[in-house]
Amino acid sequence: MKRNIYLKKKSLEEAKRLSSMLAGLIHLGDETIPVIQARGRVTSQPIFAKISSPPFHCAAMDGIAVRAESTYGATEDAPRVVRLGQEAIFINTGQPLPPGMNAVIMIEDIHQIDSARVEIREAAYPWQHVRPIGEDIVATEMVLPASHKLTPYDIGALLASGYQKIQVKTKPKVLILPTGSELIEPKDVNLSEPLTKVIESNSYVLHQLVIEDGGEPSRHPIVEDDFDQIRNTLLSKAKEVDLILIIAGSSAGTRDYTRSIIEKEGEIYAHGISMMPGKPALLGRMKNRPIIGIPGYPVSAIMAYEELVRPLLYQVFQLIKPERVRLRVYPTRNIPSKLGTEEFLRVNVGKVGETFYASPLPRGSGIITSLTKADGILRIPSLSEGVEESREVEVELFRPLEVILQNVVMVGSHDLTLDLLANLLREFYPPIFLSSQSVGSLGGLLALKNGFCHLAGTHLLDPETGEYNIPYLRTYLGEMKVKVINLVYREQGLMVQRNNPKGLRSLKDLLREDISFINRQKGSGTRILLDHELKKLSIEPTQIRGYEREEYTHMAVASLVASGMVDAGLGILSSAKALNLDFIPVSKERYDLVIPSIYLNEEKVEKVIETIRSKKFKEEVLRLGGYDVSKTGEELL
Amino acid sequence: MKRNIYLKKKSLEEAKRLSSMLAGLIHLGDETIPVIQARGRVTSQPIFAKISSPPFHCAAMDGIAVRAESTYGATEDAPRVVRLGQEAIFINTGQPLPPGMNAVIMIEDIHQIDSARVEIREAAYPWQHVRPIGEDIVATEMVLPASHKLTPYDIGALLASGYQKIQVKTKPKVLILPTGSELIEPKDVNLSEPLTKVIESNSYVLHQLVIEDGGEPSRHPIVEDDFDQIRNTLLSKAKEVDLILIIAGSSAGTRDYTRSIIEKEGEIYAHGISMMPGKPALLGRMKNRPIIGIPGYPVSAIMAYEELVRPLLYQVFQLIKPERVRLRVYPTRNIPSKLGTEEFLRVNVGKVGETFYASPLPRGSGIITSLTKADGILRIPSLSEGVEESREVEVELFRPLEVILQNVVMVGSHDLTLDLLANLLREFYPPIFLSSQSVGSLGGLLALKNGFCHLAGTHLLDPETGEYNIPYLRTYLGEMKVKVINLVYREQGLMVQRNNPKGLRSLKDLLREDISFINRQKGSGTRILLDHELKKLSIEPTQIRGYEREEYTHMAVASLVASGMVDAGLGILSSAKALNLDFIPVSKERYDLVIPSIYLNEEKVEKVIETIRSKKFKEEVLRLGGYDVSKTGEELL
Repeated sequence: MKRNIYLKKKSLEEAKRLSSMLAGLIHLGDETIPVIQARGRVTSQPIFAKISSPPFHCAAMDGIAVRAESTYGATEDAPRVVRLGQEAIFINTGQPLPPGMNAVIMIEDIHQIDSARVEIREAAYPWQHVRPIGEDIVATEMVLPASHKLTPYDIGALLASGYQKIQVKTKPKVLILPTGSELIEPKDVNLSEPLTKVIESNSYVLHQLVIEDGGEPSRHPIVEDDFDQIRNTLLSKAKEVDLILIIAGSSAGTRDYTRSIIEKEGEIYAHGISMMPGKPALLGRMKNRPIIGIPGYPVSAIMAYEELVRPLLYQVFQLIKPERVRLRVYPTRNIPSKLGTEEFLRVNVGKVGETFYASPLPRGSGIITSLTKADGILRIPSLSEGVEESREVEVELFRPLEVILQNVVMVGSHDLTLDLLANLLREFYPPIFLSSQSVGSLGGLLALKNGFCHLAGTHLLDPETGEYNIPYLRTYLGEMKVKVINLVYREQGLMVQRNNPKGLRSLKDLLREDISFINRQKGSGTRILLDHELKKLSIEPTQIRGYEREEYTHMAVASLVASGMVDAGLGILSSAKALNLDFIPVSKERYDLVIPSIYLNEEKVEKVIETIRSKKFKEEVLRLGGYDVSKTGEELL
Repeated sequence: MKRNIYLKKKSLEEAKRLSSMLAGLIHLGDETIPVIQARGRVTSQPIFAKISSPPFHCAAMDGIAVRAESTYGATEDAPRVVRLGQEAIFINTGQPLPPGMNAVIMIEDIHQIDSARVEIREAAYPWQHVRPIGEDIVATEMVLPASHKLTPYDIGALLASGYQKIQVKTKPKVLILPTGSELIEPKDVNLSEPLTKVIESNSYVLHQLVIEDGGEPSRHPIVEDDFDQIRNTLLSKAKEVDLILIIAGSSAGTRDYTRSIIEKEGEIYAHGISMMPGKPALLGRMKNRPIIGIPGYPVSAIMAYEELVRPLLYQVFQLIKPERVRLRVYPTRNIPSKLGTEEFLRVNVGKVGETFYASPLPRGSGIITSLTKADGILRIPSLSEGVEESREVEVELFRPLEVILQNVVMVGSHDLTLDLLANLLREFYPPIFLSSQSVGSLGGLLALKNGFCHLAGTHLLDPETGEYNIPYLRTYLGEMKVKVINLVYREQGLMVQRNNPKGLRSLKDLLREDISFINRQKGSGTRILLDHELKKLSIEPTQIRGYEREEYTHMAVASLVASGMVDAGLGILSSAKALNLDFIPVSKERYDLVIPSIYLNEEKVEKVIETIRSKKFKEEVLRLGGYDVSKTGEELL
């Protein structure tokens, strides 16, 4: 069984040097296109004005054109009368100055006596209210340099200097070739049947990225993991394009043929880059074209593109690649990272009080939502072992700072009504965004204590008193002044497969030998509730199969139950309904938001509370089922 | 004669409030489009995942799928043999885990004994190398909120969550209507004849700006200044669009009908805004559509768009308008500005030493090159009387900081070879840009003295010694250590109309009564040369008609001569040739670059010198004619 072994792994820096060398293989031609469609294209040569702008001396105001000398001596007291058609000619802004005239008197400064004569009450000076020829652009002067990306403003300057067509660099043609027998084309997906293949989406993401970077992408349909098919496709297509991106097939698996094909038909410069995600990337040459192997996991694919392909495209155009705006932030927790590998950690960023905090999103290279939800990237350099909570670091922002400043940062337990809240907030107060992170109820209170968030969502039962949340505040928040506002009451219960095939009726059935359970993580309100209920029933947790296995959200638990991997998990009705599961009620609990008093006057936090109190929010919550909104929006502390 | 009088001028702030109110008239619909074409579009509602991603438990590695429990106890010393097809099944990354299996062992960790059996040397743990269903996206969970502008990443997330089509907000339809009898369509321009109309370019600039801001523009052909034509066009088109931009016709001229039409057919909310450029803008409503009157001067048009239309479009989409990156800079000179008016000063920005400096570009509202050449905008607030050289202010950047950092700032006398130099620099060292400003030779030395630039270009003759430039250094630069590098020798002479119709032969002919002259500004090398030559000939300057009238560049002088407004001006051969003028040589002069020693080791400055010394630069200079490159690139001090 033959499998690939990575060449000695290259540093990202070295890989970028190689990618820059590969850029040298691409030579863009010229093409002539209409100026009015040229925005975003790149000039192939300097552009020199064909004509001047304005193309003649012209009136800068509506009025009469005169020869200034003929008006000398005119005053309020001694107005001068000039004859129309001879000494004075009516003129509008932009019209050419008639021969012999050298000044314009504004319409509001003259008095027309009759159809032949006009009275002037102030002398004009030469060139008064005249735009001289070439005031803006002088014929033959350089309007734009070569290798300049055309803006809307440039379109105006080009038209004014006599251009209707312009020579620009051709777009580099980029072949995007997805490979893998495990993949299905999006258009072939039939949602009414269970999927057995993974939807191919990377090629479409790359397609859009290539367009944004000025290239001309062409996507090839999925090619199966077959040496000859991949090889023949590459050989037949290579000559038609400037650059090849081949997706997947460059890992260390047995059916990863990309490398051996390029080794045979071209040359490999790097295989395996010290970056995460993105390690399996490959740099090579085939038919004298650069070929870049893009890893198959979505985040890896995007990172490999952005680090290795985007700079190459900018270099080919001879343009400077703009960097993302950087912001100094504090990580909300310690994040160890592998020495010798540059890691691209996706983070949410929010300004809480006077400080910007970055909370890491899931690190898996398969999790594209870690990019779509991210506010930016925290680069952990290869010589670092990670970042620390107390140490300021830089984040490269995906979104403008204005957007990030509107993030209300909520940390705590997950609940489906938070999505509703986020959406209504956006509907009512568009700029404000509720950025929520699921770390469980206790995690939320700890984040609040550390000042990392504006509000925490908790549903922590105090087993001694039967009271929710408030008994925990003193212990976890100390003297911090907070308000507690009820979000909802919600039903917790056992989620089981549809039609309850194993006939569960209560928590006691979890003791059955044929029942496997999935638990929530320690510190989550659901876990505390479960332990409380088990204690009331005198059930020993270790007797439950799966008690030790933990998931972090209701939906993750529901999803495992739905897939049949486990039989039951404790969760909320809305999650069960979402995945079409049966639900056996166990208890009703209170879910509150805890908000430090110091943030209560911040407009964005006020708007969150207003939205919770809106009629529409309560209506939408009730529509989910399993919720009670009788105290929603009430101040409980 | 009826003419418009502005309504009481509105502050820009008030105008923005009105524009925001007008946004409320626009209600976007929904449309369903393919996901793979949806980048840049805006979601009309929150998007909830149709399916989970991955859609099943799948292998995260190539290898064999097993039930972890069946491998317990396996070690290097006591490998366990499992039967293929029963206890173990070969699996590739992304493939679904077969029923009953819950772990994957990597291909590199197993040994295949024969076609039926595999040896395992280490126990697998449950869920090892498995991507659980929904690891990335759980069905029903919110993938994207409403009013979200779709990125390439989002395309991936949407496809993975089962979407092939998606509902987005429709694009606001924007009618762009240029008006003015003085205008000509770009396509109707015939460059072989002299132009008598101004090329209409504003509508095409607005067209591109609307596209960038997510709208769907439609441009109407030019409509003449005719009340009924404009009115009928507006009435017939209004219902087809969401927003009307009418260009020009909103000034105070007699033929400015926009306002009276809107007054008659709708309502005017503002006419005349305290902004510069952009004052004549107008805000109104017609057929219940917002109508915005865009001034006719190009910079006014763009500023009015960016301040009043762009925010409206963002608001209609419920998106936050991203702000430009801001940079703190020092102005290179005092700039008085009108109290009560917000001025948008276009500036070049460069980092010289450790400081960022902003040099103002021409302020005229007709000068579009003041935008195309600008690195950013310096906003002078309405309550300020201007900016001061010594006071730090903020600039909003048009270009990324990376690009601005590569600006080599040159100030001084203008010469056509500087365009050649800038272009070659870009060809040889793409990121570096020579940003040059024409303020004359003395102006260059003063800028150098103040630390505003990296290098100055001068051709200052010392009449006493006949030496160029070096005698001036002590006087103007004091003890500053500098290098002087020759750029070129060039011929100065009288530029006269083609075929020299007035038969000029030398400077003496400037005394003739029938000859009008145009001079260069005081402090320019050309002016000093002229005065020197006149003195040698004992000519009294005041005897020359036009001696007191000044222009700032060779090309401006040449352009006036070419238009026939004057008969002669002193300038360089290349300028005369550019405009097809005759040239009567007067003198040869030395044009040098003066560079402070502290900048000589900066890479970007080094590259400028290298480029000057290149063979290609000298060749291209010689091709212009009128230059001598025998000392080009030589260090003269």
